[in-house]
Amino acid sequence: MSKRLVLPALTAFVSATAGRNMTTAAYVAVATGVAMMTLLTVQPAYDTAPHWINALLSACLAYFVFEWVVRLRHMRRQGKLWFYALSSAGVVDAIGALAVPLALLSGLDPKTAWLLGVLWVLKVVPGIPGLRQLRRVLVVESGPLLSVLVIFLMVVFLASVAEYFLERDVQPQTFGSVPAALWWAVVTLTTTGYGDVVPITPLGRVVAAMVMISGLGVFGLWTGILATGFAAETRRDNFLKTWETVSKVPFFAHLGPAAIADVTQVLRTMDLPPRTMIIRKDTNGDCMYFVAAGEVEVDLPGRKVKLGEGAFFGEMALLGNAKRGASVSTSKVTRLLVLDLVDFRLLMARHPDLAETIDAEAKRRERENQ
Amino acid sequence: MSKRLVLPALTAFVSATAGRNMTTAAYVAVATGVAMMTLLTVQPAYDTAPHWINALLSACLAYFVFEWVVRLRHMRRQGKLWFYALSSAGVVDAIGALAVPLALLSGLDPKTAWLLGVLWVLKVVPGIPGLRQLRRVLVVESGPLLSVLVIFLMVVFLASVAEYFLERDVQPQTFGSVPAALWWAVVTLTTTGYGDVVPITPLGRVVAAMVMISGLGVFGLWTGILATGFAAETRRDNFLKTWETVSKVPFFAHLGPAAIADVTQVLRTMDLPPRTMIIRKDTNGDCMYFVAAGEVEVDLPGRKVKLGEGAFFGEMALLGNAKRGASVSTSKVTRLLVLDLVDFRLLMARHPDLAETIDAEAKRRERENQ
Amino acid sequence: MSKRLVLPALTAFVSATAGRNMTTAAYVAVATGVAMMTLLTVQPAYDTAPHWINALLSACLAYFVFEWVVRLRHMRRQGKLWFYALSSAGVVDAIGALAVPLALLSGLDPKTAWLLGVLWVLKVVPGIPGLRQLRRVLVVESGPLLSVLVIFLMVVFLASVAEYFLERDVQPQTFGSVPAALWWAVVTLTTTGYGDVVPITPLGRVVAAMVMISGLGVFGLWTGILATGFAAETRRDNFLKTWETVSKVPFFAHLGPAAIADVTQVLRTMDLPPRTMIIRKDTNGDCMYFVAAGEVEVDLPGRKVKLGEGAFFGEMALLGNAKRGASVSTSKVTRLLVLDLVDFRLLMARHPDLAETIDAEAKRRERENQ
Amino acid sequence: MSKRLVLPALTAFVSATAGRNMTTAAYVAVATGVAMMTLLTVQPAYDTAPHWINALLSACLAYFVFEWVVRLRHMRRQGKLWFYALSSAGVVDAIGALAVPLALLSGLDPKTAWLLGVLWVLKVVPGIPGLRQLRRVLVVESGPLLSVLVIFLMVVFLASVAEYFLERDVQPQTFGSVPAALWWAVVTLTTTGYGDVVPITPLGRVVAAMVMISGLGVFGLWTGILATGFAAETRRDNFLKTWETVSKVPFFAHLGPAAIADVTQVLRTMDLPPRTMIIRKDTNGDCMYFVAAGEVEVDLPGRKVKLGEGAFFGEMALLGNAKRGASVSTSKVTRLLVLDLVDFRLLMARHPDLAETIDAEAKRRERENQ
Repeated sequence: MSKRLVLPALTAFVSATAGRNMTTAAYVAVATGVAMMTLLTVQPAYDTAPHWINALLSACLAYFVFEWVVRLRHMRRQGKLWFYALSSAGVVDAIGALAVPLALLSGLDPKTAWLLGVLWVLKVVPGIPGLRQLRRVLVVESGPLLSVLVIFLMVVFLASVAEYFLERDVQPQTFGSVPAALWWAVVTLTTTGYGDVVPITPLGRVVAAMVMISGLGVFGLWTGILATGFAAETRRDNFLKTWETVSKVPFFAHLGPAAIADVTQVLRTMDLPPRTMIIRKDTNGDCMYFVAAGEVEVDLPGRKVKLGEGAFFGEMALLGNAKRGASVSTSKVTRLLVLDLVDFRLLMARHPDLAETIDAEAKRRERENQ
Repeated sequence: MSKRLVLPALTAFVSATAGRNMTTAAYVAVATGVAMMTLLTVQPAYDTAPHWINALLSACLAYFVFEWVVRLRHMRRQGKLWFYALSSAGVVDAIGALAVPLALLSGLDPKTAWLLGVLWVLKVVPGIPGLRQLRRVLVVESGPLLSVLVIFLMVVFLASVAEYFLERDVQPQTFGSVPAALWWAVVTLTTTGYGDVVPITPLGRVVAAMVMISGLGVFGLWTGILATGFAAETRRDNFLKTWETVSKVPFFAHLGPAAIADVTQVLRTMDLPPRTMIIRKDTNGDCMYFVAAGEVEVDLPGRKVKLGEGAFFGEMALLGNAKRGASVSTSKVTRLLVLDLVDFRLLMARHPDLAETIDAEAKRRERENQ
Repeated sequence: MSKRLVLPALTAFVSATAGRNMTTAAYVAVATGVAMMTLLTVQPAYDTAPHWINALLSACLAYFVFEWVVRLRHMRRQGKLWFYALSSAGVVDAIGALAVPLALLSGLDPKTAWLLGVLWVLKVVPGIPGLRQLRRVLVVESGPLLSVLVIFLMVVFLASVAEYFLERDVQPQTFGSVPAALWWAVVTLTTTGYGDVVPITPLGRVVAAMVMISGLGVFGLWTGILATGFAAETRRDNFLKTWETVSKVPFFAHLGPAAIADVTQVLRTMDLPPRTMIIRKDTNGDCMYFVAAGEVEVDLPGRKVKLGEGAFFGEMALLGNAKRGASVSTSKVTRLLVLDLVDFRLLMARHPDLAETIDAEAKRRERENQ
Repeated sequence: MSKRLVLPALTAFVSATAGRNMTTAAYVAVATGVAMMTLLTVQPAYDTAPHWINALLSACLAYFVFEWVVRLRHMRRQGKLWFYALSSAGVVDAIGALAVPLALLSGLDPKTAWLLGVLWVLKVVPGIPGLRQLRRVLVVESGPLLSVLVIFLMVVFLASVAEYFLERDVQPQTFGSVPAALWWAVVTLTTTGYGDVVPITPLGRVVAAMVMISGLGVFGLWTGILATGFAAETRRDNFLKTWETVSKVPFFAHLGPAAIADVTQVLRTMDLPPRTMIIRKDTNGDCMYFVAAGEVEVDLPGRKVKLGEGAFFGEMALLGNAKRGASVSTSKVTRLLVLDLVDFRLLMARHPDLAETIDAEAKRRERENQ
């Protein structure tokens, strides 16, 4: 293949994916790059195949440089050059493309320069599924989290000065200065406990014991704050994802806004690839499904029935018959809304008309299947 | 006993229990097998009684092979051979039966081959009580949990390269390659802190301190996610278990669906073996009980009254008299529904008719007892 | 003092307190006993004052024996001898009284026999404030907690056999048997990480890393379960404590059951010793108080006003005036019900009549004070 | 500058800030003081620039003494001398001003005396943002937290006596007394695990394993309690902050108390400095904002529109158009109320009139902008 053919193809490919966070190719490049960077530092491994390792590292770097250049060009055409270049994705792309070359050019030892290849892992960040959720929790709870951090640092400082005072004469080697005692305090308060610096005087041990117990407390506070934040965020995130889908399901279309809000709170969204088994015949079921997008295939005896957008299935499980009567699997990329037995019952208690609709449809199907 | 008698009896026993997850016999076999496998590796213990250990190991293996074969035959008769063989229970049974023999046949050292006996502990999995609940939490929260794992790995990679760069010249022995630094990073970020690899340069310690504090954060996030998932799952699980039982209790039969949903949310299911003390006379009580299945015995002065399905007792505790008037214990395997004082009061505020029924029945009993 | 005077006095004192869990005397005896038992094992400390230590230990033991005998006699008179003797408190008292004497009689070295004095700390158990709450959480959540424990043990077993297999040839000293590897696994999975047994082969370290990350997961599950249980229990416990008190406050007497249930859910009970400052003048306030039992003293300019059972104060903070106008302190042992600003507002939105009553009373007081 | 000019200026400055918790100057002084105190103990660093370090330390101390004196004078003039002197802030100020001088006067080695400078970090405490919230959680949950602490101590005592008994003969050096075993127990139960004291007998290791698993339990309980407390406190704190602001926004003025309580529960307060970007054009939005105080600037094509107190913006995101149409940034110190999409929908379901108002205003703006 001549360069004249490969380059345009690659450019087209990268352009097409400029809007998406990560392509499979980029994941492979990141994994290969970081693995090779790691092997570079293992003397025996590097001595075995130095050329391969160097070649792969260069290939990865070339890919990232290329990707960055193509994205920049693509974005400039759309008039969003600076929007991209200054966005977090743009900065990460720039670092991935420029860090190693700049280090090599500045005369650094190649083995050291390639270590910067570890920054390529940052390219994975935007692709992390629940990241937005995590970030929101950290932002909303930043106040209390910061308080705990300040308390943590205060305990560290007070404890290390106390310990320095108590241990410096007995262990001048390890507790010879406040920074050394600070190292001990962090290692202890996080309950890491390397054991390289350990108090040996009775009073020093009493202080250390109090630091350890405070460590449990800091842990607990931290976790408690995050748990609280997550509970709120999970409820919120699920509502957002489900709301849009609910309105597209004809079954819920006639409901009033109050009922829709109720329904949205209890439904769970589920995205499935094609040919995935949803229900396995003869297993116990405790939820029903609505097809929000895509298509599923019901494997009835002798024939296969396709259900498209807006259809529902598995409702028998909620109407008293726990054993699944037929296997169901997806035939396309499908988005389902899942309604649990528990929520179904609570919902029915408040909206009896919903129950009647599901009941009528279930009876109609049963007649049809016989 | 001749083989002609033992084998059919065993076959019948295993067949009868093919549907259940674990028999007591299987638990004993697993415990014995794993214990013997452990002793096999302790030189002094093995030297004392090599024949006993070998014999017991073989017996356990024989039991598992036998159990697997019988189950396969039993399932084939029911036309569910492949359903069983490919289910997780079937795969675990197959591993338990085949792993050690295959290892022995492949010419492995017997002492090493028997180590595979540890896989027998997997047979305990389906019998774990809250497992289904645990699995659902992990599935529902898989998104955020995965995010935290990715963040964990990213911190590990970035920190280990930084630490390798900072420490490699001072400690070529322990920080001589990125994989070695990765080991340090995992040990530190999980706050395990063996102390076999410890940074000693000032900058290396600052990086390490940041890793430890991140470790607390990762811990906190992880726990927060799981706590949130559990809160939802516990509510759900209890509702499911209770719902079916509530409808069987005549006391609640006349309630509308909204009230039943309310009641179901506050009742707790309790399964008890026979001859278990439920209420001890003269202790303080703060809940009443409904008998959903089985039978209980009230130990009144001079006589014993049996209460069967649908009856309730302990209601005095909710009507102002905290001291239990009589001991109550189960006489069969019994399923109870427990109604706490708190929930009783909240319930009564919304459904005053329930209170009247309980009150009337309590008065009737008091008259009767005098 | 002759023995004839002391003994009856002591007997009367212990009898009087037989119903209560712990007297101050018992706390002192436990603290002294355990401290002396500890000193007994410190050679230099014991050599300094062996007679004092022995004498104090004997005195503590004598107290516990005496207390147990008096309680037994007291209970027998009330016809509850066996109820007490078999209750947990009775068993703990018996252990405290008999363990050391029996050990001494059985010919054990006195220094070893006195170690059993540590069992005296068990006498503190019934006096722990939130214990009942803790126990209920553990009982209600026992299912999932047990599951996590089983999973923990399974990971420990599988990991230790894998590690034994991978490390036994390289480190026969520390990984020479499965029990030794089990020790490593527990130390690692709990993230304790002593560092006395550490894998050094690459594959062994990969297994260890997975064990550590599982450790975080086990931690997280455990905590998540307990957090969920606690949330429910705290709400419940507060409701129980508050309910009884609410009905005694005339202010709430005219409310219907639904409103009372609402009020009970938002009030918090607070028990205070005499002469405790509740409100400090000129500080910011965000709650009001109801006197459920006891008496408080309002420090108005020039005179002191006493408020008894059923009165309320601090209501200005909820009606727009955040600065406290007067100091208030208890004059007897007092039980207060605290109503937070947040809950007050939510409550008023649903029960506007409550707001009017508080408003009217506040205006009346203002007129009175001018 | 002569002293005659500097002193009055400084006095005025400190007086003006006497009411506030911390000035930037004080933060700088604390940071400098603690850093110098730390450097004082590092021999090489101190040898490089002893005069600078001493001078800076003295300057910091002088600042704190001066600040304390000025505050005392300021408070005496307001007649609140004792209120301030005995308040926690006053005590911390006094310690910061007097601890080091008193230590120096009492003849302590200067290097040791200056260590007390670490107490200056206490001055940061009142400025910690979420501290009040943290303290309330600790107070409200003090009962269960104390129980866990008592259980922690009981396990520590029982385990250390058991371990002392099991290990004293094998390791007289490390397990030679109960206090030594207590040190081991605390290090183990907090899962710190230094590894300086490790049991080696089989039974000792079994006890240690149980202690470690209990450690997980203690952790879990602790965290669970704190998480529960935090969930309640966060909801409460947000309500308090938001309530006052909501009533000032004309948009909500006509709502009834029930609706206001509903709205308050879902709004989040956000305080922003001037010139902060709130909305970035072309990003996805999922919340709208109300200006509670301050002013924001909408960057429309060709002109800038200022929105003052009571205005709202970003409402398009809630009415179906997710892409933000214009950038918005603050022009003054601004307090915003944030309404999330999720909460908006839930709110609209219950208060349809709110939706209409927002809808009408949005349409009016659209017309205007065209």
